[in-house]
Amino acid sequence: MKLYYWPKTRAFRALWMLEELGVPYEFAYVNIRAGEQNEAAFCAVNPMSKLPALDDDGVCVAESGAVLLYLADKHPQAGLGVPLDDPLRGRFLQWMFFTGACLEPAMAEKMIGAPGNSVSFGWGDLGRVEKAIESALAHGPWLLGERFTAADILVSSTLQIAYMAKLIEPGGALSEYVARATSREAHERAVSIDKAEAQKASSAAKN
Amino acid sequence: MKLYYWPKTRAFRALWMLEELGVPYEFAYVNIRAGEQNEAAFCAVNPMSKLPALDDDGVCVAESGAVLLYLADKHPQAGLGVPLDDPLRGRFLQWMFFTGACLEPAMAEKMIGAPGNSVSFGWGDLGRVEKAIESALAHGPWLLGERFTAADILVSSTLQIAYMAKLIEPGGALSEYVARATSREAHERAVSIDKAEAQKASSAAKN
Repeated sequence: MKLYYWPKTRAFRALWMLEELGVPYEFAYVNIRAGEQNEAAFCAVNPMSKLPALDDDGVCVAESGAVLLYLADKHPQAGLGVPLDDPLRGRFLQWMFFTGACLEPAMAEKMIGAPGNSVSFGWGDLGRVEKAIESALAHGPWLLGERFTAADILVSSTLQIAYMAKLIEPGGALSEYVARATSREAHERAVSIDKAEAQKASSAAKN
Repeated sequence: MKLYYWPKTRAFRALWMLEELGVPYEFAYVNIRAGEQNEAAFCAVNPMSKLPALDDDGVCVAESGAVLLYLADKHPQAGLGVPLDDPLRGRFLQWMFFTGACLEPAMAEKMIGAPGNSVSFGWGDLGRVEKAIESALAHGPWLLGERFTAADILVSSTLQIAYMAKLIEPGGALSEYVARATSREAHERAVSIDKAEAQKASSAAKN
């Protein structure tokens, strides 16, 4: 399994997911500082020129949510997904789509100071998005209650970016949720790997 | 199966999907003109207060992409999805996530005239999104080649909105694709139902 990857990008989500799964993988480096994401070879993998993307023995998939859902379904024994015949499958899918379709667009709108006409586009403003996450977390430590799933990887890692970019005030249930998610061992391993890869890339760029 | 629905909303996508599947369903009306989407009963179904949402005998799911993916997986015999063990599953998921995570945010940005910093958020501008769809359509009449899937419902119905809102110039491969998709019998049935429901709602509002 090959993860198209570059450090300090949203490929981190897939890296964290792979560390949670504990399955073997290797990196296929796509140097986004050098524009490699726009080269024909990578465009054939993802015409949007974005990371992450995955090549699982010829099965290609891009879009963060799709990559994580594919991996969760492929490795049911890891318990990071919800089986097709489980009554929670619906909610699981809903939260898998939420980050790309609600959380990120609302963050982008706030970042560029756009007027809030986004309600008609389905993500509402960032306040509504935060409340939606809080309403789910009222029922357990994770979005689906007691189960930590791939949806928590997507939502918590994106919220962390929102905090770093000062788009959301820290504090309350959301901050606690992010702290809970990012203190997992697999997250810490992923952070170490991402840091080491960033240093390697930085040294290589200097030579 | 209950579809939370109001005419002339994005619940249309789910209605089209249900007509493609040919499975029994009923409407649970959520009058968005009267603000019913913000009432506690519906917020428990979807904290984002958005249509469509689905209640399949107690299994709840919201977010357009999630609703259609749930239905496609639930009814494999209809062939609107791609099975988990099929090599095209990765691409299928990618296109299922694409509408909410790329196409709609890019449309919204163009609509509000926002500056194009959206590249860093993963959807690029609308031009990149159009090119990505065209690159997929180079291999067949549908996004996955010969197979019409739920991803075509999402992408083509959203492109149709982009044309109506004059966000994309008509013509070329994309227009032909939308025409091909919307000439399907199930689409025509869904349009008739949506129109009849709109008239019913309009008459009721006058009384």
